[in-house]
Amino acid sequence: MKLILFVYCSIFLTVNLSAADRSNEMIKPIPATSDINQAKVDLGKQLFFEPRLSKSGFLSCNSCHNLSTGGADNLPSSIGHKWQLGPINSPTVLNAKFNLAQFWDGRAKDLQEQAGGPIANPGEMASTHEAAINVLESIPEYVNSFKSVYGTDKIGVEQITDAIATFEETLVTPNSKFDKWLQGDDNAISKLEQVGYELFKAKGCITCHNGIGVGGASYQKLGMVKPYPDTKTLGRYNVTKKEEDKYFFKVPLLRNIELTAPYFHDASTWDLSEAVNIMAEYQLGVALSADENQKIVAFLKSLTGEQPKITYPILPPSTKDTPKPDRN
Amino acid sequence: MKLILFVYCSIFLTVNLSAADRSNEMIKPIPATSDINQAKVDLGKQLFFEPRLSKSGFLSCNSCHNLSTGGADNLPSSIGHKWQLGPINSPTVLNAKFNLAQFWDGRAKDLQEQAGGPIANPGEMASTHEAAINVLESIPEYVNSFKSVYGTDKIGVEQITDAIATFEETLVTPNSKFDKWLQGDDNAISKLEQVGYELFKAKGCITCHNGIGVGGASYQKLGMVKPYPDTKTLGRYNVTKKEEDKYFFKVPLLRNIELTAPYFHDASTWDLSEAVNIMAEYQLGVALSADENQKIVAFLKSLTGEQPKITYPILPPSTKDTPKPDRN
Repeated sequence: MKLILFVYCSIFLTVNLSAADRSNEMIKPIPATSDINQAKVDLGKQLFFEPRLSKSGFLSCNSCHNLSTGGADNLPSSIGHKWQLGPINSPTVLNAKFNLAQFWDGRAKDLQEQAGGPIANPGEMASTHEAAINVLESIPEYVNSFKSVYGTDKIGVEQITDAIATFEETLVTPNSKFDKWLQGDDNAISKLEQVGYELFKAKGCITCHNGIGVGGASYQKLGMVKPYPDTKTLGRYNVTKKEEDKYFFKVPLLRNIELTAPYFHDASTWDLSEAVNIMAEYQLGVALSADENQKIVAFLKSLTGEQPKITYPILPPSTKDTPKPDRN
Repeated sequence: MKLILFVYCSIFLTVNLSAADRSNEMIKPIPATSDINQAKVDLGKQLFFEPRLSKSGFLSCNSCHNLSTGGADNLPSSIGHKWQLGPINSPTVLNAKFNLAQFWDGRAKDLQEQAGGPIANPGEMASTHEAAINVLESIPEYVNSFKSVYGTDKIGVEQITDAIATFEETLVTPNSKFDKWLQGDDNAISKLEQVGYELFKAKGCITCHNGIGVGGASYQKLGMVKPYPDTKTLGRYNVTKKEEDKYFFKVPLLRNIELTAPYFHDASTWDLSEAVNIMAEYQLGVALSADENQKIVAFLKSLTGEQPKITYPILPPSTKDTPKPDRN
């Protein structure tokens, strides 16, 4: 009798422990941000919202990575200088630091390298790094901030992009319902969401969508089991020029996915449920039932975390020496 | 001897009293905002930053009345749908409630009437009121907010513009150095700024630029004593069709004027010092010395107040029923 009770208790304890211990799951909770250089973050925030980094004086990082709307612009592709329409859907800046590289094709190794791209892209902010530096150096408040943060009188693009990247590193969305569940709160997600997660694993979605970002950790071929309709966008091939990298893209993060329609690099659907079915069809070769789809979507929505609380920055005024914006 | 001392003391006290009692000045301090309906303000803030009120899903009120940059876009004229360039410089939304009417020509009687304009202006946000309502009614969080604030299941343009206007009413900039001086703090402004204010009065600037907004209280002819170069923009005439209203404009607010270059309805100068000289020449028929100009500019900069502290709003996601943005 004593032995039976002991075994019973052990099983009971084991089950309870394993319910709370989810550290072996392939998805990991978003860790708390630490070691913040607040002065650098504040400068980076100003620069992130700074329209004078664009030729027109109208577009900022936030124009296409809008922190009100999930860190993206929720457009098929972004609107750039003179209303040029970009070639690809704008990825979210939220949790972007958990990507192995930046841009869909991974052409920037990190957030800092990424930040320099749009400023000087003629189809986006259409400025140049030199012009951006000239703007900032004409404004005493910026000169003082760069001096205080970087100890230099000369503003360089390295400092500009470092400050922006440092701000972007704070743009994480912790404490989603799913993360709370991962951290041991059994009641944080519903039965439906939990079953959805089990399906997400069982169907194989988690093979690519895992880690802290629930994606962002690898390049994968879009159309792994069935050719994807868009054959114009070559993805990773543009960087490596290797034939075998054609149609490979950085796996998108699924964090806050309900906030960032339309979906995929080509924005081919606005509907998360349809997006899940497309993935199942082209990547996994399976057809989901409506019930399975609904459950997986419910799980995905449990990945929405706390959005960054941003105090809208006040930007210092231009001076007589500040180059004028050029809308043309 | 006693009498002399008494007279001396009286004079001393009188001077000191009058230094602190500035309630008869023609410029009045910005009063504290009171009686805020926080739920309505929060809804209005979301709508102010809501790009889905535009046809493209890209432009919001804040695009042209950017709260990072003095409540204006600091462009010669605003950039609208498909990069259309507007016909006139965008006035600041900061302290706009102190205007006798809205727009340069006063065609909207108040902030609420103003707010409906740009949404449906084909050259600006290029949507329609009906389309804007359809967007908001497709999003449950907005439906709930309107129900909670206005007690209605049916969202109307009256509620949309009322919420935006209510938010805008909170966009005031109190506690400028000059206001502190007006309120009795003798050391709040420098001697230079104070002399600049005396010149501002003596030269006649204060005839039009007075009240809480330091402007905004009347329509005045641009080119009162000397014809102004721009004769294409007819101003108040567009509203009244009265010949005598040609070239009349609402007197702009001078609060935070250092933040909102370029200046005048036609953005004819980016330089505040030059703007002051232009006003002296065309409105007052006087030529200011460089010294006088510098002092008046110093006074004007003392009008910069505390910028509104805005927590950037998080906007609720679109649903399957939300009309898609149209960038074309």
